[in-house]
Amino acid sequence: MQLPALPFLAWARHYNTSTAGRDALAAVIVTVMLIPQSLAYASLAGLPAQLGLYASIAPLLVYALLGTSRVLAVGPVAVVSLMTASAAGEVAAVGTPAYAQAALILALLSGGMLLVMGWFRLGFIANFLSHPVISGFITASAVLIAGGQMLVILGVRGGSQTLVDIALGLYRQADQISPWSAALGLGSLVLLIAARKGPGPLRVEAGVNARLAGILSKAGPVFVIALAALCTWHFGLDRRGVAIVGEVPGGLPPLSLPPFEPDVWRALLLPAFFLSLVGFVESVSVGQTLAARRRQRIEPDKELVALGAGNVAAAFSSGFPVTGGFARSVVNFDAGAETPAAGFFTAVGIALAVLFLTPALYYIPKATLAATIVVAVLSLVDWTILARTWRYAKYDWACALSTILGTLAAGVEAGLVTGIALSLLLVLYRTSRPHIAEVGLVPGTEHFRNRDRHAVRTDGRLLSLRVDESLYFANARALEDRINAQVAANPELKHLVLLCSAVNDIDSSALESLEAIDRRLAEAGITMHLSEVKGPVMDRLRQSDFLDHLHGQIFLSHYLAVKTLTPEVATRG
Amino acid sequence: MQLPALPFLAWARHYNTSTAGRDALAAVIVTVMLIPQSLAYASLAGLPAQLGLYASIAPLLVYALLGTSRVLAVGPVAVVSLMTASAAGEVAAVGTPAYAQAALILALLSGGMLLVMGWFRLGFIANFLSHPVISGFITASAVLIAGGQMLVILGVRGGSQTLVDIALGLYRQADQISPWSAALGLGSLVLLIAARKGPGPLRVEAGVNARLAGILSKAGPVFVIALAALCTWHFGLDRRGVAIVGEVPGGLPPLSLPPFEPDVWRALLLPAFFLSLVGFVESVSVGQTLAARRRQRIEPDKELVALGAGNVAAAFSSGFPVTGGFARSVVNFDAGAETPAAGFFTAVGIALAVLFLTPALYYIPKATLAATIVVAVLSLVDWTILARTWRYAKYDWACALSTILGTLAAGVEAGLVTGIALSLLLVLYRTSRPHIAEVGLVPGTEHFRNRDRHAVRTDGRLLSLRVDESLYFANARALEDRINAQVAANPELKHLVLLCSAVNDIDSSALESLEAIDRRLAEAGITMHLSEVKGPVMDRLRQSDFLDHLHGQIFLSHYLAVKTLTPEVATRG
Repeated sequence: MQLPALPFLAWARHYNTSTAGRDALAAVIVTVMLIPQSLAYASLAGLPAQLGLYASIAPLLVYALLGTSRVLAVGPVAVVSLMTASAAGEVAAVGTPAYAQAALILALLSGGMLLVMGWFRLGFIANFLSHPVISGFITASAVLIAGGQMLVILGVRGGSQTLVDIALGLYRQADQISPWSAALGLGSLVLLIAARKGPGPLRVEAGVNARLAGILSKAGPVFVIALAALCTWHFGLDRRGVAIVGEVPGGLPPLSLPPFEPDVWRALLLPAFFLSLVGFVESVSVGQTLAARRRQRIEPDKELVALGAGNVAAAFSSGFPVTGGFARSVVNFDAGAETPAAGFFTAVGIALAVLFLTPALYYIPKATLAATIVVAVLSLVDWTILARTWRYAKYDWACALSTILGTLAAGVEAGLVTGIALSLLLVLYRTSRPHIAEVGLVPGTEHFRNRDRHAVRTDGRLLSLRVDESLYFANARALEDRINAQVAANPELKHLVLLCSAVNDIDSSALESLEAIDRRLAEAGITMHLSEVKGPVMDRLRQSDFLDHLHGQIFLSHYLAVKTLTPEVATRG
Repeated sequence: MQLPALPFLAWARHYNTSTAGRDALAAVIVTVMLIPQSLAYASLAGLPAQLGLYASIAPLLVYALLGTSRVLAVGPVAVVSLMTASAAGEVAAVGTPAYAQAALILALLSGGMLLVMGWFRLGFIANFLSHPVISGFITASAVLIAGGQMLVILGVRGGSQTLVDIALGLYRQADQISPWSAALGLGSLVLLIAARKGPGPLRVEAGVNARLAGILSKAGPVFVIALAALCTWHFGLDRRGVAIVGEVPGGLPPLSLPPFEPDVWRALLLPAFFLSLVGFVESVSVGQTLAARRRQRIEPDKELVALGAGNVAAAFSSGFPVTGGFARSVVNFDAGAETPAAGFFTAVGIALAVLFLTPALYYIPKATLAATIVVAVLSLVDWTILARTWRYAKYDWACALSTILGTLAAGVEAGLVTGIALSLLLVLYRTSRPHIAEVGLVPGTEHFRNRDRHAVRTDGRLLSLRVDESLYFANARALEDRINAQVAANPELKHLVLLCSAVNDIDSSALESLEAIDRRLAEAGITMHLSEVKGPVMDRLRQSDFLDHLHGQIFLSHYLAVKTLTPEVATRG
């Protein structure tokens, strides 16, 4: 089904009160979850708390109109907030107006890039982030985020761009650790973990409806935060070294204009690109997973436009970069959201909160918010990627490991660059040393397999080589070397047949090599043939004069080649 | 045959006087050719004339000991001299001591890189320079060199890093063009072209031995240069605006020590790398072409060591970067050189020239030297690469064109970077959108081909897809999309068989996609099978739990799969 130009038209015309009811219920649950999360992610990004709420209004409205996922919950998320802090920290100091402006510029730039990628259907660019790189990156980012938030829990200043930053921060401020903050933060952490894992069986025993239990467990963090705020207020902990959220200005987000400063824009260009890429990949994979469960689909190129517009909206409404988050989307899905209207209702909920609820946020301890982040990101950590790739393919393991180490040691951008560059280089390296198998006929069939692995028939006068790679400049020489070596080892050789079933392309460099091989073999009295050349490759060869010069023939199938050149091998029996 | 550790041992023990005679004759001819060339290439590199002679002594001695090519003539060459001028010009002004030192540092750095690449057997790195990129680069460099030398012929200052440089140089100095220099230079050019092309038939008519005629035509440039020097001296043209070589200090090359200045070294690192790459590729391709004609071979990794040591020798003997040149190597070969001792004799010849011949070089006009370069490099220009690649493969054409344009517009390094980057990106782009063919049985055989190209048998219950690419992160999603689309279009489908004869690898990202596809198809009542999975890929799949989860089977051959799943299709007849 082709979605209409404005995706909301696909669902808006069938919208009715029963759908609206389910969407509204889901929106209430997501709003309750989003309020503390948005405060926490704003502080992770190094920004004032209210910006988290601001970033959870306009982008959600825009995504509700343009998004193709029915249940994706857009807003501030952990990894993108960390990347924002990393990039903005390069051009300004935390707490300065320039820092908040850098966040606006980042949102505008990455929104613009996503829009351009969407309009030009460049969503495939995200495919160059391989699974090991993404997994490694998310895991390492989560470790950095958790480490940085542990500093906040201990009541010292954060700074979590690299593991070294975190260790140095802890070492230098060891004498400023606040025991009250630590107690409150660690206490919150224990309660949050318990709320997430422990009470399930208890509640089921108590006969509580499973779905209600699930919803209650999502609300757990809110109770923990309320409890911590109550303690802080009651015992006056804010006067004993416990940092609190403090005064949050009420009122809807003010309009904002990202300032145009060419140097800053240039410095933020690359970070914005990576931010777009990671945000898009995270969002699309969540969206696709959830859509598949309900046999719906999302359109990646339209998602680019929706996320891009959402970020542009954030840039003009005092927000910071946003994307579709994993945890909230799953909650939205589980709570029964049916259309993007749930996102619309969530935005309304946050708007009401920012209008009327901000005084209630005053006593929330930052250590408790940090604890909610730690719990949220720990679920992103997945070390099994190392074990799995080690078993399956060492080159994938190398990519995952180098992304993790690069991110932990040198920050998010360095980690991503390392991982992407290495994964691309390893693809080229692998294809530059192709697997070439000498094949023979599997008796009783017309099928040819590697003589080292199967019991097959061969003949000394005919050498059948199956080239297991497209031929291009990086492996053309390897092919020449291999054929030279094989031919030298077969003195009675009369025919070489290259089985091209796995050759998906032959570029001009490789064509020159093939011509050189054919010429040299002909001088040595050996004829070179090709078999099972694919249609697209054959079309290309016909454009050159290769076929005029080739001493041998092109056979439709390898069996036909063998039957023609050495009939006795092909005899069945 | 494995060559000994020191390659010269392979020929030195069989060396005798008759071989020595042939080597010495070739050396005389190459020396006569090399004297003016080395002066000319030194001036192309922006260096004093004698440095060309210096660079033609020590490197030749070192290469004679370590080289594996019997006939490669090492020394200053056109393209490498241009690259030297480009790199040294970035860190110092032509004519300053710092400029000459930059050339020494370049020789040392690129020599060191070649040695390291040789020791670690990294010669395959050069394979990443595709044929269109190399051809385009050499052609564009030759155009730049010829353009720059035309300025010298006109008697104005050179500067030939880009076409714009050359045009601006001509425009700004139009009033300083020297008519005498232009007349002498253009006259030399005409004579040189005539000497190269014209007299052949004449001499054959006059009954001159063909080989002698060939040798005489190589000596042609020397006669032209002598004539031009005579004219200059006789008519006192050096006082009428004709630039001459002037006083060349006699004596053997002084020892030199490339100064260690970290900033300069860092700035020259990348240029030195490209210089190594281009020098190595040029040298190896000449060496291989000539070795193949005599059924000898060269060993690329040892060539790296020999060229590297030669450049290090140049760095310590007041030279500049060198490599194996095309024209002189061919002359050496044609003149009958049999062993690298010819190179040794050539070095002795140049040493004698620098000791005793320098006064004779005084009146050589620079315009005539420039004319010899123009003639030499014009033979490197090969525009047919554009037409050939346009016909054969547009992506190769794009690489050749962008290398040419990049080099002409922005200089040698920018051109190389553009070409290499584009060729690698295009490989990734091509493999990221794999060709996937729906195949059917060719009647009367066990062979399967694309149903769009051949008359084949298929069955609506079984979809046979041949994936024409290794599966990896960049194309995993494209595969999912394609299969989803194909499956949706076949309502009666029961089995999907992926014919994996062209799948040379499956990385972890693609493995996850395959698992997801299998799961999703199973839910829709369709079973996914694989056929003709290759040995190395199967080994890898066995390391994962894919085979435990797969709903269908793995068939040895696609025919077997079809015979098992839809027997009536496989019935012959």
